[in-house]
Amino acid sequence: MKKTFLLASLLLFSLGSFSQQALWGIPTILSPEVNSDNTVTIRVVAENAQKVQVTGDFLPPQKHNGKVVYYTEGVVDLIKGENNIWEYTSQPLTPELYKYNIIVDGVKTNDPLNVHKVRDVGSIFDIFIIGGGNADLYQVQNVPHGNISKVWYDSPTVNRTRRLTVYTPAGYNTSKTKYPVFYLLHGMGGDEEAWCTLGRAAQILDNLIAKGLAEPMIVVMTNGNIALNAAPGEDEKGLYAPTIALPNTMDGTFEKAFPDIIKFIESNYRVLKDKKHQAIAGLSMGGFHSKNISAMYPNKFGYVGLFSAAINPNGEFEPYKDLDSKIDTQFKNPPMYWIGIGTDDFLFQDNQKYMQYLKEKGYPFTYRESGKGHIWENWRIYLSEFVPLLFK
Amino acid sequence: MKKTFLLASLLLFSLGSFSQQALWGIPTILSPEVNSDNTVTIRVVAENAQKVQVTGDFLPPQKHNGKVVYYTEGVVDLIKGENNIWEYTSQPLTPELYKYNIIVDGVKTNDPLNVHKVRDVGSIFDIFIIGGGNADLYQVQNVPHGNISKVWYDSPTVNRTRRLTVYTPAGYNTSKTKYPVFYLLHGMGGDEEAWCTLGRAAQILDNLIAKGLAEPMIVVMTNGNIALNAAPGEDEKGLYAPTIALPNTMDGTFEKAFPDIIKFIESNYRVLKDKKHQAIAGLSMGGFHSKNISAMYPNKFGYVGLFSAAINPNGEFEPYKDLDSKIDTQFKNPPMYWIGIGTDDFLFQDNQKYMQYLKEKGYPFTYRESGKGHIWENWRIYLSEFVPLLFK
Repeated sequence: MKKTFLLASLLLFSLGSFSQQALWGIPTILSPEVNSDNTVTIRVVAENAQKVQVTGDFLPPQKHNGKVVYYTEGVVDLIKGENNIWEYTSQPLTPELYKYNIIVDGVKTNDPLNVHKVRDVGSIFDIFIIGGGNADLYQVQNVPHGNISKVWYDSPTVNRTRRLTVYTPAGYNTSKTKYPVFYLLHGMGGDEEAWCTLGRAAQILDNLIAKGLAEPMIVVMTNGNIALNAAPGEDEKGLYAPTIALPNTMDGTFEKAFPDIIKFIESNYRVLKDKKHQAIAGLSMGGFHSKNISAMYPNKFGYVGLFSAAINPNGEFEPYKDLDSKIDTQFKNPPMYWIGIGTDDFLFQDNQKYMQYLKEKGYPFTYRESGKGHIWENWRIYLSEFVPLLFK
Repeated sequence: MKKTFLLASLLLFSLGSFSQQALWGIPTILSPEVNSDNTVTIRVVAENAQKVQVTGDFLPPQKHNGKVVYYTEGVVDLIKGENNIWEYTSQPLTPELYKYNIIVDGVKTNDPLNVHKVRDVGSIFDIFIIGGGNADLYQVQNVPHGNISKVWYDSPTVNRTRRLTVYTPAGYNTSKTKYPVFYLLHGMGGDEEAWCTLGRAAQILDNLIAKGLAEPMIVVMTNGNIALNAAPGEDEKGLYAPTIALPNTMDGTFEKAFPDIIKFIESNYRVLKDKKHQAIAGLSMGGFHSKNISAMYPNKFGYVGLFSAAINPNGEFEPYKDLDSKIDTQFKNPPMYWIGIGTDDFLFQDNQKYMQYLKEKGYPFTYRESGKGHIWENWRIYLSEFVPLLFK
């Protein structure tokens, strides 16, 4: 068998239609295509569809009676052109990581031409990035990269083995030094994969460290669904459909079991264990957890970040009793306490009240008010701003 | 703000429509649903579509003039029922990991209700598993799990930093012992993610080790596209569309740079470095690489696996010159040499010829002939059978 035939056979038979197109010179249709003017073009090849649409956070939000309806994304029609190629080109977009879905004759699904998809709870989104500004932090750049590990730890407090995502910075493998640790917590319905998918935590850390704007650190991304072992599909429950109807997420169980995670990390990684080298932050439910954990273990965390955090303790659960006095203890030797919230966030008022409380007590904190609401765009920004403040 | 309102707000606003359905009692539509009789039901909610279909490897292959056309998958129509739910239930299926796509009015895309998708080169497939038999090895079981790490290594031979997937078995972190190493290589167009997605390598290793059928080992899943650093989206090239039109994949460059990988692994993991504790195997192009690498470094690998391997060396490339004499040297102290191929594989005859050559030379090998062709089903089976033979 001649080399060229072997090669052609391999190409033809072992791979999909996309590759065959590339091989045989059929024009390859690109979608999404980020254009030089920061517009994006979405394309779908569809001969028989009646209507092809795109919905996503790069489109203006939907309006009802002339008013923006928050948390709903715009929908626009693609226009059918030659060769059954449907197309839509956006307005120029500001730098950001955007997510979208395709709608074919009313069925909301994914872009057949985009392999870059991420899961957020029970949804799969197609993504693209418009570079520039803060979004350059979200791109993989030509800089030294940290490693990402999915690791299992024993949690005797809840009698199960559970899964974490651990980022170790570039150089960790070859250096002999110890590193500070940053525990980074997801929101309700999320899991240990969330901060490394839509959160772009690995890219943000790589890029900030490479620029000299952040200390090299270990980042531990936990799974706050304490009744589960791991992200959907990663434990013996099989390939199930994710749900947020999870027990014990906000009853203190996760907080009580948190020392199991600390023990695992401090036993298995070269870490600096003192308060000056320990940070904790989280988004939404993870902000709630971070607030509680940092108060329950007041001598552990020198840096605390509340990103669009749920605030109110559920007083009837034992671990949340006396949380105010625990916060009093925590602020005898105050951590760097950082609160970020968007003006449109449904938790905005709760956060204002909590900050008022802290002020009355004379407890210092840093406040970062952003626009918009309870969305990943804000959480990526908060992470990008919080990380440079750590361990300085 | 009361707890219940807070909770409801979190549920409502921070999460997608799937979760809202679960919360508000709207019946949750499941797709795919694996039924107790080993049939599978695929469902799509579509009010306005004219035709909804499913295509996948769980359907009988397409026929042309009454003859099966290999490498084409069957297509069946879903039937529209109440509440705009389209449905198809398969025949009872044999245990296996299956992949499929949904076709909405002619647009081949993904199942909107299935978050369990995998990428294979430039295609995204939805997957499900019918348990039982060998497929139980592909499921995550309630056994100790190894860790999966995406790590970067220096490859001075090609002057770049490149990415690997490394599996460390359960217990690696807490034990002080050294482990054998198994290098596991992907096929053309694949990358360091392939064996842990459709290959189910982590599950196969976890389950075989837990049953006592395999030695605990480190598995190193390389990226054989030597002109690239990493899988698509994981390097500074950004979120591009994958292609197989890659240079230098079968010209010996990867083989020449392979010692950089070995050096990295042996410097960063607790490994047994002698021939009795080193294995290499790969599928298709990765089998070709394994054949060449094991011959070029004849004192390194005590175990060699060729899974549906491309065989013929491209003699004009310098590293492949004198490959026969290198194989002669390799077989002076023969490794366990294992060849697996499907009877319908387009590389079947090439493999027969190569085995005839080995026989004439008197070089021992093990032959595993399977049915079917150049498909992941075979590669998962070969891996499941090869791993228990290692390091015994």
